[in-house]
Amino acid sequence: MYWKNAFIRTLREEPSEAETVSHKLMLRAGMIQKLSAGIYNYLPLGLRVIKKIESLIREEMEKCGAVELLMPMVIPAELWRESGRWDRYGPELLRFTDRKNNPFLLGPTHEEVIVDVARRGIRSYRDLPVCLFQIQTKFRDEVRPRYGLMRGREFIMKDAYSFHAGAESLDKTYRAMYKAYTAIFSRCGLEFRAVEADSGNIGGSVTHEFHVLADSGEDTIAFCDACDYAANLEKASTRPPEAVEIPSGAPAPLETATPGKTSIEEVSAFLKVDARDTLKMLVYEVDGAYFAAVCLRGDRAVNEVKLRTVLGADAVSIPSDDVVRDNLKLAVGYLGPRDLPQGSVRYVIADLSVRAMGACVCGANREGYHLTNVHPSRDLRFDRFEDVSVAVEGDGCPRCDKGGLRMRKGIEVGQVFKLGEKYSKPMSLTYLDEKDNACLMTMGCYGIGVGRTAAAAIEQHHDENGIIWPAAIAPYAAAVLCLDAGSEETCAVSKSIHDVLERNGIDVLLDDRPERPGVKFKDADLIGFPFRITVGLRGLSEGIVEFKRRAEKTVEKIPKASCAETIVKLILGARKV
Amino acid sequence: MYWKNAFIRTLREEPSEAETVSHKLMLRAGMIQKLSAGIYNYLPLGLRVIKKIESLIREEMEKCGAVELLMPMVIPAELWRESGRWDRYGPELLRFTDRKNNPFLLGPTHEEVIVDVARRGIRSYRDLPVCLFQIQTKFRDEVRPRYGLMRGREFIMKDAYSFHAGAESLDKTYRAMYKAYTAIFSRCGLEFRAVEADSGNIGGSVTHEFHVLADSGEDTIAFCDACDYAANLEKASTRPPEAVEIPSGAPAPLETATPGKTSIEEVSAFLKVDARDTLKMLVYEVDGAYFAAVCLRGDRAVNEVKLRTVLGADAVSIPSDDVVRDNLKLAVGYLGPRDLPQGSVRYVIADLSVRAMGACVCGANREGYHLTNVHPSRDLRFDRFEDVSVAVEGDGCPRCDKGGLRMRKGIEVGQVFKLGEKYSKPMSLTYLDEKDNACLMTMGCYGIGVGRTAAAAIEQHHDENGIIWPAAIAPYAAAVLCLDAGSEETCAVSKSIHDVLERNGIDVLLDDRPERPGVKFKDADLIGFPFRITVGLRGLSEGIVEFKRRAEKTVEKIPKASCAETIVKLILGARKV
Repeated sequence: MYWKNAFIRTLREEPSEAETVSHKLMLRAGMIQKLSAGIYNYLPLGLRVIKKIESLIREEMEKCGAVELLMPMVIPAELWRESGRWDRYGPELLRFTDRKNNPFLLGPTHEEVIVDVARRGIRSYRDLPVCLFQIQTKFRDEVRPRYGLMRGREFIMKDAYSFHAGAESLDKTYRAMYKAYTAIFSRCGLEFRAVEADSGNIGGSVTHEFHVLADSGEDTIAFCDACDYAANLEKASTRPPEAVEIPSGAPAPLETATPGKTSIEEVSAFLKVDARDTLKMLVYEVDGAYFAAVCLRGDRAVNEVKLRTVLGADAVSIPSDDVVRDNLKLAVGYLGPRDLPQGSVRYVIADLSVRAMGACVCGANREGYHLTNVHPSRDLRFDRFEDVSVAVEGDGCPRCDKGGLRMRKGIEVGQVFKLGEKYSKPMSLTYLDEKDNACLMTMGCYGIGVGRTAAAAIEQHHDENGIIWPAAIAPYAAAVLCLDAGSEETCAVSKSIHDVLERNGIDVLLDDRPERPGVKFKDADLIGFPFRITVGLRGLSEGIVEFKRRAEKTVEKIPKASCAETIVKLILGARKV
Repeated sequence: MYWKNAFIRTLREEPSEAETVSHKLMLRAGMIQKLSAGIYNYLPLGLRVIKKIESLIREEMEKCGAVELLMPMVIPAELWRESGRWDRYGPELLRFTDRKNNPFLLGPTHEEVIVDVARRGIRSYRDLPVCLFQIQTKFRDEVRPRYGLMRGREFIMKDAYSFHAGAESLDKTYRAMYKAYTAIFSRCGLEFRAVEADSGNIGGSVTHEFHVLADSGEDTIAFCDACDYAANLEKASTRPPEAVEIPSGAPAPLETATPGKTSIEEVSAFLKVDARDTLKMLVYEVDGAYFAAVCLRGDRAVNEVKLRTVLGADAVSIPSDDVVRDNLKLAVGYLGPRDLPQGSVRYVIADLSVRAMGACVCGANREGYHLTNVHPSRDLRFDRFEDVSVAVEGDGCPRCDKGGLRMRKGIEVGQVFKLGEKYSKPMSLTYLDEKDNACLMTMGCYGIGVGRTAAAAIEQHHDENGIIWPAAIAPYAAAVLCLDAGSEETCAVSKSIHDVLERNGIDVLLDDRPERPGVKFKDADLIGFPFRITVGLRGLSEGIVEFKRRAEKTVEKIPKASCAETIVKLILGARKV
């Protein structure tokens, strides 16, 4: 392809609307163009990246037995009424009516439609398992679309759904999908982690997220430095710490005046103890129905996702000080698990961190007082010990005996779910078993954000000059820069290199513009072609052309004679690695 | 691919909702599945056909220099306000608001968005011409969606747009696109015609439609039996007929009583003259502003599309009898161009057919009377002679001297337009010329209905048993029917043929189901695989497998030894033809 035919439009200026590196670079390199908030044109360079990711995905999906179909973007409301999501899904669901006033929605995900396909096409256990996928445009009316393709409103997603007679079959497909995802992100050239995650809105019990590791990621992932445990921080659990022994003769708890000291910082400064030696108690309102108290080490934070799971609740929230003071009759700022007024909270839950605490300070449930010399195992009573705090660096791994947790930032690009019967049940998705009994099918679902994968690749692979595409998903693997477009020899050599590369199946772009060398180098670095070949008069007079890998600093000088063949070998060799 | 993994679901019963052959067969063969009126799931077999058509289109687009991009389905209203179409486009435009109450539409076509892309990306005459295309899902809220993919609401379209500095450059691209379309439909294995057409709503001056010929087509196309003239009937013109001489001594017009005889049939029966020897006059209301009369031979019909063009009007319609009688003071049923009351109509237009009329009958503009012995050239006065009647078989070709027009039914699958400045002007799409003057760009646009092409292929290629896919767009080129799935030898031979075909790049489906042979034959005929290989115990015992082309009746017996290689040669040989 010649540059002048490729409709490439790079921008000189930093686009003001972009907050993240990938968003900035995709706009500047002319990959995407904003049409409206969260709605983008994929310009030719950007679409090439998308298509390459799509075809990697398609190959791996087919390898693991998934069959491609295509469902519509416009979905009749009645199907979503069946599942209950028409009412339950928030304003992210774009609802509208057609000219006959029938209600429709723009599909943000396709569980309902695929369940309808399955119940029309699957009769018997003999038809199972079935795994179907599509690569399709979705719409989610995000309240704050941002970061370009990272959180758009209209976006391209690969979504797969599997149907099973029973959990064992689902397990098998789930594992195959997990493997396929690993293959996809590896082939995309990305450093990533599969992590345990919370199943959130889509429901189901088991789920893993695939995160591309990048400092700019919005999620934190915790992983063990000794085994393969990895989890989204919102889900990450920790090894219960060893319980401590109480030294004999340890003094009894003592009520101590701490006037006006209500925060952990204030109390520990005032009493000259480390925050680690304080125990804090928080009160939560659970599902708007009752209150529960959570105790944890003063320097740790409650993980509300874990707390919800432990309580089997849909929602937990911190009530206002007024509610705590007036309704629960508690001394705000001086809460503690000892001497709690009867009936104020239904449960007192202690985080596992409390088990390892020795002498500590906690609120006395009396305005202006804390207790010191408290030994939780001796002096306090809890209803349950649970893992409800946010894991921190150095916490013990919950899976192995020896490892500690480390943290990295990640960008979620894919997720696999065991849905179970979440959709089969309300939508009556059944099959006939060997005895002709109608049984509910078990389901899995598996998504990859295609555009987000492209953006995450940039977050992980860039420098101050632009993108550094992994070769497999670069818009073009190689660019030939013809520096002196006025010279016949330069043009001829450039074109011949271009043609030889193309004949060898390498997608190559020839920069044939009548621009200054500086402009061409800048654009090539910005767009991020993995391999750059520079042909200029000076080099040719020395009998060489230049070959440079985007990710490296050094320039290789390639003798002009049969340079095209040499370059083909270098590129194909690098790809195999 | 093995049948049991391919999610193929054929239907035994005739689907009641389907009116056309292609709709029925696509439903029965499990290619598509209705989700809502005009909204379909593409099941795996159907999607394979769509993808094959898409990749043929993509190849030919790229060959002629068009570059692919992808624009969104959800488009902000403001762009359509600029072009004026937000208000002008009827209820087929699906309008809605997002959660912030901003108005959007689902794109039924993308002129506005691409003009926006062009004005952000094209500065100078040096950047021109540019040709961009996408293959994308569109939505048109048809009042009566029908015939499956033929007239859906959500549908896949290839739309291309070109931008030029001047008409000459547009001409060149228009011709290249015309050629590409010819290549695409030829490669799809379709019999088609490119015809001149009316430019309708999209506007512009010159346009050709590409029609797949099929008796079930909704459009009639007229073409010359001697030259390459071809046009949509709504646009087809005719060679002006020779004027006739008036015999000397021909009698003068005579007012003749025709009481109660108001239609051509009644008058010609009553006066015992052929309908060809009557002249009828119709009154039209033009743009709701004035009235015009049209005279034509009694057996012909007015072509209102041509009439609109001749009058430079947006709308023409027949007023009610009351309006004609009361407002224009004309005798309904006895209208004629002679002795027309002053001021009743602004123009009297004669169709070219009138030039060739000898003695004839026409209305006398007096209740209950017609004129006989009328020689139009002697006795009638017209403001203009124009080609405003519907062409009929046998009319002279307007392009060559000798040919006559023939008629065929067609299905419109593509259209190419010269848009000119229709969108550049309201949306200020300009470039700087050599002298740095801002000039409006000239545009072309070029569409192909991808799903409709698939449906049209079926309308053209089917028999009573099912579809007969052209090999290039079949879901699978070949099917291997393993008749005795219980026999080890049959399975082994079937699989080995399947594997060899696949290794040779032939997409092949192995019917490995434990079904009766009758079911397998029926399904293979219904789905329409171009090549069928049958492996059964009886054949194997005779040392053969069977090879059959879907379009032919005969079965070829292929010796078992190296049968796979023989079959590969037969299939690849047939494809090359």
